[in-house]
Amino acid sequence: MLNQVADLDRVFQALADPGRRLMVERLSQGPASVSELGRPLAMSLAAVVQHVQVLEASGLVRSQKVGRTRTCSINPAALRSAESWIAERRSLWERRLDRLGDYLADSARSTPRLSSDQPEEQQ
Amino acid sequence: MLNQVADLDRVFQALADPGRRLMVERLSQGPASVSELGRPLAMSLAAVVQHVQVLEASGLVRSQKVGRTRTCSINPAALRSAESWIAERRSLWERRLDRLGDYLADSARSTPRLSSDQPEEQQ
Repeated sequence: MLNQVADLDRVFQALADPGRRLMVERLSQGPASVSELGRPLAMSLAAVVQHVQVLEASGLVRSQKVGRTRTCSINPAALRSAESWIAERRSLWERRLDRLGDYLADSARSTPRLSSDQPEEQQ
Repeated sequence: MLNQVADLDRVFQALADPGRRLMVERLSQGPASVSELGRPLAMSLAAVVQHVQVLEASGLVRSQKVGRTRTCSINPAALRSAESWIAERRSLWERRLDRLGDYLADSARSTPRLSSDQPEEQQ
């Protein structure tokens, strides 16, 4: 559980940078070398390497060095864990809204029945 | 577009803290006051207020002051924008895997036909 919390910290932190999101976007289309990842970004290779290291530490990206080229690829499990966390909270919120809607609809239906014969339930 | 990038920066940054995620989790079950949000967290009220401000700046949370109580509630649009960003990248990656799978299946089917009469296509 503690590990999962730390992982989500790092995943969301990694996604909080527009350059790193661009790298994830590129990698979602297939593996790429570090220099390919840096190409659309106006930054030094050293800065690109640092961003790749943040992405790797978060688990979003894996890399493998063959000869002199380091090739990066996406790790969909980390993307999925962040997506699930958000989706679960959003769905909790929506279920709560649904219940509120049901409650208001029930209240609207029962309001005209003030003279009903049915006694109120007592606890 | 620029605004959207900045918003995602702030949303992911806001979600990168475990205390703030706990606040979002609490708010997904319904509105709460700032002091209610701080109750499960071992931190000063000043620190809680700062976290709430980060959540508000990101658009994830809205608040309203009535009398002396500030009540916070979730803004599902911000949750949805972060969720969509991740889901789109994951789905790009999965479509790519599907295409790769189709390609490999096609290759496997055509491999035994080395002695086929059909000539290879030439460019």
